[in-house]
Amino acid sequence: MSTMKAAVFVKPGRIEIQERPIPEIGPTDALMRVTTTTICGTDVHILKGEYPVEPGRIVGHEPVGVIEKLGAAVTGYEVGQRVIAGAITPCGQCHACLEGISAQCGGKAMGGWKLGNTIDGCQAEYVRIPDARANLTLIPDGLSDEQVLMCPDIMSTGFGGAESGHVRIGDTVAVFAQGPIGLCATAGAKLMGATRIMVVDSVPERLEMSRHLGADITINFREEDPVEAILRHTDGKGVDVAIEALGLQETFESCLRILKPGGTLSSLGVYSGKLSMPLEAIAAGLGDHHIVTTLCPGGKERMRRLMEVVASHRVDLTRMVTHHFRLDQIEEAYELFSNQRDGVLKVAIKP
Amino acid sequence: MSTMKAAVFVKPGRIEIQERPIPEIGPTDALMRVTTTTICGTDVHILKGEYPVEPGRIVGHEPVGVIEKLGAAVTGYEVGQRVIAGAITPCGQCHACLEGISAQCGGKAMGGWKLGNTIDGCQAEYVRIPDARANLTLIPDGLSDEQVLMCPDIMSTGFGGAESGHVRIGDTVAVFAQGPIGLCATAGAKLMGATRIMVVDSVPERLEMSRHLGADITINFREEDPVEAILRHTDGKGVDVAIEALGLQETFESCLRILKPGGTLSSLGVYSGKLSMPLEAIAAGLGDHHIVTTLCPGGKERMRRLMEVVASHRVDLTRMVTHHFRLDQIEEAYELFSNQRDGVLKVAIKP
Amino acid sequence: MSTMKAAVFVKPGRIEIQERPIPEIGPTDALMRVTTTTICGTDVHILKGEYPVEPGRIVGHEPVGVIEKLGAAVTGYEVGQRVIAGAITPCGQCHACLEGISAQCGGKAMGGWKLGNTIDGCQAEYVRIPDARANLTLIPDGLSDEQVLMCPDIMSTGFGGAESGHVRIGDTVAVFAQGPIGLCATAGAKLMGATRIMVVDSVPERLEMSRHLGADITINFREEDPVEAILRHTDGKGVDVAIEALGLQETFESCLRILKPGGTLSSLGVYSGKLSMPLEAIAAGLGDHHIVTTLCPGGKERMRRLMEVVASHRVDLTRMVTHHFRLDQIEEAYELFSNQRDGVLKVAIKP
Amino acid sequence: MSTMKAAVFVKPGRIEIQERPIPEIGPTDALMRVTTTTICGTDVHILKGEYPVEPGRIVGHEPVGVIEKLGAAVTGYEVGQRVIAGAITPCGQCHACLEGISAQCGGKAMGGWKLGNTIDGCQAEYVRIPDARANLTLIPDGLSDEQVLMCPDIMSTGFGGAESGHVRIGDTVAVFAQGPIGLCATAGAKLMGATRIMVVDSVPERLEMSRHLGADITINFREEDPVEAILRHTDGKGVDVAIEALGLQETFESCLRILKPGGTLSSLGVYSGKLSMPLEAIAAGLGDHHIVTTLCPGGKERMRRLMEVVASHRVDLTRMVTHHFRLDQIEEAYELFSNQRDGVLKVAIKP
Repeated sequence: MSTMKAAVFVKPGRIEIQERPIPEIGPTDALMRVTTTTICGTDVHILKGEYPVEPGRIVGHEPVGVIEKLGAAVTGYEVGQRVIAGAITPCGQCHACLEGISAQCGGKAMGGWKLGNTIDGCQAEYVRIPDARANLTLIPDGLSDEQVLMCPDIMSTGFGGAESGHVRIGDTVAVFAQGPIGLCATAGAKLMGATRIMVVDSVPERLEMSRHLGADITINFREEDPVEAILRHTDGKGVDVAIEALGLQETFESCLRILKPGGTLSSLGVYSGKLSMPLEAIAAGLGDHHIVTTLCPGGKERMRRLMEVVASHRVDLTRMVTHHFRLDQIEEAYELFSNQRDGVLKVAIKP
Repeated sequence: MSTMKAAVFVKPGRIEIQERPIPEIGPTDALMRVTTTTICGTDVHILKGEYPVEPGRIVGHEPVGVIEKLGAAVTGYEVGQRVIAGAITPCGQCHACLEGISAQCGGKAMGGWKLGNTIDGCQAEYVRIPDARANLTLIPDGLSDEQVLMCPDIMSTGFGGAESGHVRIGDTVAVFAQGPIGLCATAGAKLMGATRIMVVDSVPERLEMSRHLGADITINFREEDPVEAILRHTDGKGVDVAIEALGLQETFESCLRILKPGGTLSSLGVYSGKLSMPLEAIAAGLGDHHIVTTLCPGGKERMRRLMEVVASHRVDLTRMVTHHFRLDQIEEAYELFSNQRDGVLKVAIKP
Repeated sequence: MSTMKAAVFVKPGRIEIQERPIPEIGPTDALMRVTTTTICGTDVHILKGEYPVEPGRIVGHEPVGVIEKLGAAVTGYEVGQRVIAGAITPCGQCHACLEGISAQCGGKAMGGWKLGNTIDGCQAEYVRIPDARANLTLIPDGLSDEQVLMCPDIMSTGFGGAESGHVRIGDTVAVFAQGPIGLCATAGAKLMGATRIMVVDSVPERLEMSRHLGADITINFREEDPVEAILRHTDGKGVDVAIEALGLQETFESCLRILKPGGTLSSLGVYSGKLSMPLEAIAAGLGDHHIVTTLCPGGKERMRRLMEVVASHRVDLTRMVTHHFRLDQIEEAYELFSNQRDGVLKVAIKP
Repeated sequence: MSTMKAAVFVKPGRIEIQERPIPEIGPTDALMRVTTTTICGTDVHILKGEYPVEPGRIVGHEPVGVIEKLGAAVTGYEVGQRVIAGAITPCGQCHACLEGISAQCGGKAMGGWKLGNTIDGCQAEYVRIPDARANLTLIPDGLSDEQVLMCPDIMSTGFGGAESGHVRIGDTVAVFAQGPIGLCATAGAKLMGATRIMVVDSVPERLEMSRHLGADITINFREEDPVEAILRHTDGKGVDVAIEALGLQETFESCLRILKPGGTLSSLGVYSGKLSMPLEAIAAGLGDHHIVTTLCPGGKERMRRLMEVVASHRVDLTRMVTHHFRLDQIEEAYELFSNQRDGVLKVAIKP
């Protein structure tokens, strides 16, 4: 009874279910029994070998579950409570965390991203949550696993894109790409008071979903040039905030081209290759532009707030969970998700 | 008596003194008799044809002088008062100005930069100041022309670099390039509470000057690699704020390479060519980095505050004025300044 | 044909319709033909002699109308355009405006409130709009007078309460009093992402209206103690933001008593008498509390954004206009409004 | 060998040296051997019975010392290292801390103030530091105990007053009272770029000290009315930021009376009795005023930054330590300090 099933990164191209020991915990940790989790675009990068993790690492960073065991120094919780933890699990006690840069915990780039990256993750029956006092968040009564499944990463990241853009009442916002994170950025922009939200994608189902979440104007980039369309819709003035939710040179550049002087490009994408800025789009450096990148905010206060959004029915993301799998079917789930087949947005994985 | 001497952009490579009509003014304008002005790096770009202005344009955007005439709708001033105006002359009444983005007046990139760009400038005996109520600023008693000559542009831009970087008490700041604007960025960072300021240049006199203005560590990039040096000085952690004050791919890139996760790159440079971001330096978009560009803030409240800095002796920039010329010697001054000969930092031009 | 009808403050207790000359305009002014206006709580204070304006002053500060004439220096508009101006008409060009404190235009307390206060107002057939370039705002096509009638004051003030409180995604917000401004504060808090909004009033219709605009919990202070109720609903933790929208010692004090440590009291009320702070409610000064007061933000960029909120159907305030009057019936309208008879929230006045 | 000397609150009017067990520590704690500490105004409130702590509590919250022992879960430190901890010792892991309100740790008013308040303090030979990872801060090489003795409380609080006031380059700032905290507020305002600092006190030595730390104008309230003086010095405009550093109705009220519309009152005082706001001084609630209270910011990142200020020689507070005592003389030190005899500013206590 001391082993469990877990999805393990074996080598580029191979994530498989293995039998692994149930994690040991230290005094500041908790052991969570995972009841639901999901697959993230980053996991696909890991699978493809585009983001390096060490072979043997259990992947997954979006845990919903139940407290199984608590470290000696973890107070304020009880075994059996339903909880989530964020994809980012800050310690709360290093210089970076105390300065408010907790996603960069330890002062290292992406230092807050531990689960399924630098320590074992949650696509497993059990997961060790480090710095549990800072990260375990009680699920409000009445919310299902599926309702809070987007909180640990997708919702936190997407909303973070709107927040880092400092969206204000009356803003015009463009969001490039309407995958799960872009959709949440759209929802976040609306939630903060943007009054005109223009979104860009090519998948009709995603554009349709975006309208439900707050998009006022949807632009299919296969049908029209998004830069031209957005400039036309704004009488050439550009937008207050452009959110990049994909990670390509092309979308990043388009964001700059439709940004007003003084506007903010809020970037959520994970880029590869080179990233360049067309000088005419940034007035050669004299346009008072802001470019800000955001890694998924974590920690239990963040999770609490996001679950409040769910509980208050301000935003309903359950329709984003399009498919369900058992943990032992996870290889199939990866196959579906990484190829974006069958209209998949997010999958629920149940150990 | 209705003509004046003025420095006119004739064609790339040629700025010359011409006889021109004294400007007419409208109801919201003022006519300023220029007593001192200076030459900016941007003027050199104009001279070289690197920044386009229309032939026949009187250049110059750093006016110190005396009110000669006031438009019918300009209240609160008297003829004969000593005044300055900023390089940027916002209207205060357009959507961008009312939103606080006044350097981008009219919602157009660099729209607030009018003098010597889209309207005639102040390297002349007289200059028309548009939207005079928003731009004429009384010089406090006891301050000389030379003491306030840096306020319209250099000081406003350089300090703006520190302000846009949100320098806080206890910050570590790096400033790349210690020309006039970089030196003011150094002074601004110190004025805001940075406790460790590292500056990079290759000219010993400029590094010497930077120590007087607040630099704690000077790095001569001909003697050591600045990225290595800064990382070494910060134990590999990087700086809180990096200020780019030159406008080159190399310095921009170095700023990113020495920036801590969650840090801010505050860019003041005017770039040419292409600008690219090395992905490893921005954690592929996941480092919570901020990049912000700043055009010289203008308007009379800004000028008032900068002159307060001068009057309170918090910062003394008079040593930056290394050379003096009469207006009719301005071609000689351009020659000296654009070739950075003779240890020149800034020149004072007296009509 | 050079006279008009106007509501004039004669003496405390007396506002009457008089025949007055149509206003002259200067070079930076515009003359607006008023098509719709309304009565504000402040006008009632004037009527009752509680807020002093000079006898003979035309009252009213919420103008919707058509441009009749433009001053010589007013560019960018055409006669005949449908426009509004804010209750607050900043000049955009003084030190306070350029610093972003435009409601305190001129650096004088309430200096931006000119219409119906320090210059003649808009409960008249025509009104002079000062600094027209900063204040005239085109009404988007398709919006009726009634739809934008709340923008000049009620909506700007109420939303301002939420904005000054820096409401964030996931915040718990309490709003004390659900008169027109409190209702708009509720709508503003929701628009900015508050997920739990508790409102306090005693009028069932107002509590009912508040539920339509975003209130999650309504508290009738005649039925239960609002401080106890709010503390109970927050498990004793208090709220992130408390908005005072009435102007009484009692409600101000209640706001402090239900505010969490580190929370913000955003005050919109106009107080009379004395205002005191119970020390236990502010931890004797050690609770990291913020108290901020807000005067209605004005200027055309503000008005543009608010009309965008209306045009995008994010918030619908037309139901707040409960009664309609002709200008020559305005004394009757004052009687109704000041006694809050007949379920009145706001009245529309048509010259 | 398991006992130590400690200053214990016995009852109102009585703090005495007792023999007490050396504290036990838990897994997240550290034991610090105290080498230097000091007495705070708050300790005097405790002594006088004005601030309640339970009898038997060891007092003191400004520890400088050496790590004696580390809890099992405390990584990143070594026994023997020289460290300080802040007066406020946040856990870094509760909702309030993760939201950035760490002085109100646990969401309780003043919850972050534990040492010498809710747990035993540091006027003793040893002190238990809770949540050591978040609070132990290494003293930079070369700094003496005396040099960093002001960091845990006085400097953090005083600077916090300037920071909460959002002092900007060119601001005019008034500071009421120049006791240790007021003096640090003066230094902090200068460090952030204020260009005109006016301070109010009646003790000539304190006014003299304030000039060294940044005051431009000193006002002895026994010689002139400070409200009149400040208004005169600002041509009736008032100040951008007023800092209250005493805790009296009179000084709080004076701060409001000299505050410009749109300005910020940053309050550091601990008030007793009632606190009221004169309505004419806040424009009846319509002056866009900000009032913010600040409890000493704590945590190791804060302490690191403050020690950087010391190490960089930006501010030198060693002259504030006017008297030295051994721990067993602490009753004498209290007597001197609480009666402000002999020009005392701060005392150093050496166990």
